[in-house]
Amino acid sequence: MSSKGLSFIRGSSLCFSVRLSRSASTKAARQKIVVLGCGWGSYSVLRSVNKKKFDVICISPRNHFLFTPLLASTTVGTLEFRSIIEPIRNTGFRDEHHFHLSYATHLDHAQKVVQCRSALDPSMTYPVSYDILVIGVGANSSTFNIPGVNEHALFLKEIQDAREIRKRILTNFELATQPLVSEEEKRRLLHFVVVGGGPTGVEFSAEFYDFLQQDLERLYPDERSTVHITLIEANEILSSFDTKLRSYTEKIIKKRERMQILKASVTEVTDTGITLSDGSVMPCGMVVWSAGLAPRSFVNDLNVDKNSRGQILVDEYLKLPSLDSVYAIGDCASVIGNDMPCTAQVAEKQGRYLAKALSRKASTPPPPFVFKQTGMLAYIGDYRALADTSVGKSQGYASWILWRSAYSTKLGSWRLRMQVPMDWMKTFFFGRDTSRF
Amino acid sequence: MSSKGLSFIRGSSLCFSVRLSRSASTKAARQKIVVLGCGWGSYSVLRSVNKKKFDVICISPRNHFLFTPLLASTTVGTLEFRSIIEPIRNTGFRDEHHFHLSYATHLDHAQKVVQCRSALDPSMTYPVSYDILVIGVGANSSTFNIPGVNEHALFLKEIQDAREIRKRILTNFELATQPLVSEEEKRRLLHFVVVGGGPTGVEFSAEFYDFLQQDLERLYPDERSTVHITLIEANEILSSFDTKLRSYTEKIIKKRERMQILKASVTEVTDTGITLSDGSVMPCGMVVWSAGLAPRSFVNDLNVDKNSRGQILVDEYLKLPSLDSVYAIGDCASVIGNDMPCTAQVAEKQGRYLAKALSRKASTPPPPFVFKQTGMLAYIGDYRALADTSVGKSQGYASWILWRSAYSTKLGSWRLRMQVPMDWMKTFFFGRDTSRF
Repeated sequence: MSSKGLSFIRGSSLCFSVRLSRSASTKAARQKIVVLGCGWGSYSVLRSVNKKKFDVICISPRNHFLFTPLLASTTVGTLEFRSIIEPIRNTGFRDEHHFHLSYATHLDHAQKVVQCRSALDPSMTYPVSYDILVIGVGANSSTFNIPGVNEHALFLKEIQDAREIRKRILTNFELATQPLVSEEEKRRLLHFVVVGGGPTGVEFSAEFYDFLQQDLERLYPDERSTVHITLIEANEILSSFDTKLRSYTEKIIKKRERMQILKASVTEVTDTGITLSDGSVMPCGMVVWSAGLAPRSFVNDLNVDKNSRGQILVDEYLKLPSLDSVYAIGDCASVIGNDMPCTAQVAEKQGRYLAKALSRKASTPPPPFVFKQTGMLAYIGDYRALADTSVGKSQGYASWILWRSAYSTKLGSWRLRMQVPMDWMKTFFFGRDTSRF
Repeated sequence: MSSKGLSFIRGSSLCFSVRLSRSASTKAARQKIVVLGCGWGSYSVLRSVNKKKFDVICISPRNHFLFTPLLASTTVGTLEFRSIIEPIRNTGFRDEHHFHLSYATHLDHAQKVVQCRSALDPSMTYPVSYDILVIGVGANSSTFNIPGVNEHALFLKEIQDAREIRKRILTNFELATQPLVSEEEKRRLLHFVVVGGGPTGVEFSAEFYDFLQQDLERLYPDERSTVHITLIEANEILSSFDTKLRSYTEKIIKKRERMQILKASVTEVTDTGITLSDGSVMPCGMVVWSAGLAPRSFVNDLNVDKNSRGQILVDEYLKLPSLDSVYAIGDCASVIGNDMPCTAQVAEKQGRYLAKALSRKASTPPPPFVFKQTGMLAYIGDYRALADTSVGKSQGYASWILWRSAYSTKLGSWRLRMQVPMDWMKTFFFGRDTSRF
């Protein structure tokens, strides 16, 4: 029962959590890899890189890895927030000072130094030196400079965003039941707009639709006919998926009573609604914005070759051609002549490749990075999903089983692998938790 | 697999969740019970009262019931926040408009009306009429008018408080590892002060001590000798417990390397520390304030008989002697000539008694309320607890088993009864989640 007897089990919940011994002599000999960010690419490096050989330092304004494919599920409580995140320190740093809860603000490659600003105290800025640098800072949500997006729309990138969306949904439903709210205001509060028909937008709408059908309708029966979801996309929804799967999704969504797909562009977001390109105003109680990616300011400020979308150009070894020992992976990078989608899968594979490549002896150069798509999955609501894989394309219940199995086995630790199915079971039997706090 | 097929299971996760039929004729005949608050007392009324006989309306600024005896466990992640709360709407209201996410601000008994202010939009104020009123608004944490408490200390009453404490602990540890932080500032950041040696203060210190020993020490090994917890109490700690158990607790805590009990009074709280009554200043990074109770403003403003602590005086039927059909239960009330402790147990039993009493036929008056203490439990850290019950007093591991069993069976729903042991298991095997967000 002693707490110390358990430290091994606790420490090894992730592959590298066993604290490595520090010896002064090896320390001097070890090269310093600095990893910026802790999304799919960087986390993959952190977990796979040989920590006996390197001092591995991570700089990131958040201290956890987020399993993004299940983020939409947490916005409505199908899954809980902490069921899809994993503390970065559990990857097992050689020294507690090897993780910095800070922003990387500037690269000075001549000095081999990254300038940092503490995420906890903005007045604290300091340099971190590196031998090898891995840039995996990801990307921001793109607002396309549309007025009001930053101020009034909610994004869906981080776990805080999911928490904010969940709170907003519950707030609007509670407000709608209050005695002094007019019918018009109630219709506005319960009109939910999702901008962007990519996988994030579609999956969020799907999860929200399930929440409506399975929980909110039971708890707020009088609002049944008032609630409405609008999914806005200027082009095709799920454009990266197969045409057959796309039209299946459209057919399913069109059948839904309280949901519509709108082919339109948004020109402004205000605190009470949105304006479309035809000038019409659509009152709504929440706008979730998931319309594309834009470079982070660190990448914007980098004086290196980039593509038209602002991504850092790297060679087939994921290295920046102009800078020695500097690599870029994931959403912030693009391989010259071999553009890959900005997905978790690409970033994760690049991270694993890079960790392996860096661990090689200098005498045996690594093979170039080759990306092999294993498939794409998307949840579209009501126990239906899409699977667009190399062995075939499918949709419906069977794909939903595949979707759940694939993601639950992909989770980063046994803790999450236990909790996610438990959350699914709780949601199935007891419904989602609608506590607002 | 249809979502509708499950509505019964979902709806019945709590006893009264089955939506009751509305018929205009019965509605007219039904009396309106208005319940203020949704803590132990009010929640107990909401769950037990006969909803076929009454229209039951609840007014509360939060929409969930909180299982307070386990709140301290959520401050460090031994349990997750949503593992100990239950949405109020799951108690099954006859009409969705019967729950108001609002503050009760004023009682006008002549008109039989409670004035409310929306918790979501403070500009919205409106009256709610009642036939029977149950006041179960609980109490605030008492600051004893000590300067700085409201501004700089953290309370431990609501689930938001637990979230704030958890974030503060993780923030301070991360800050302490940052390069520009001086040794002195690090010692301040990692000095945690708990004011109040009642069960809440002692249990929070215990949970925090476990967190230190079992997780933080592994993740921040260099801070091992810097961290310190001070539990401040002007009188005796756990004064409501048996002397033997009290001195056992003191002995255990005194053995702890990085924890002390300080017999002192606090005269001021600032953003960097506290001042004691002897004028000495103690720098610290967090103050958790749990020093007693004070009446809520609704109770303060009530023009009825109260005791010296500001609690509403009620007769042995929990009714206000001066007002017809108005009852008060829990921490905001005191039975004339029979003062009971402000505990969950008392409030819960009063609520159940009142629900039963109200459901009786008018011709058979209820017996007076009699409180029989079933015992007190407190967790003191490192798998040890105290049990002070009518059948005996015990401490140590066996009492810890009793503590866990008692509370896990007392939880309000099967969802929580499944999740709480799951959280305990996860903490035991994988450690606590230190993600900060």
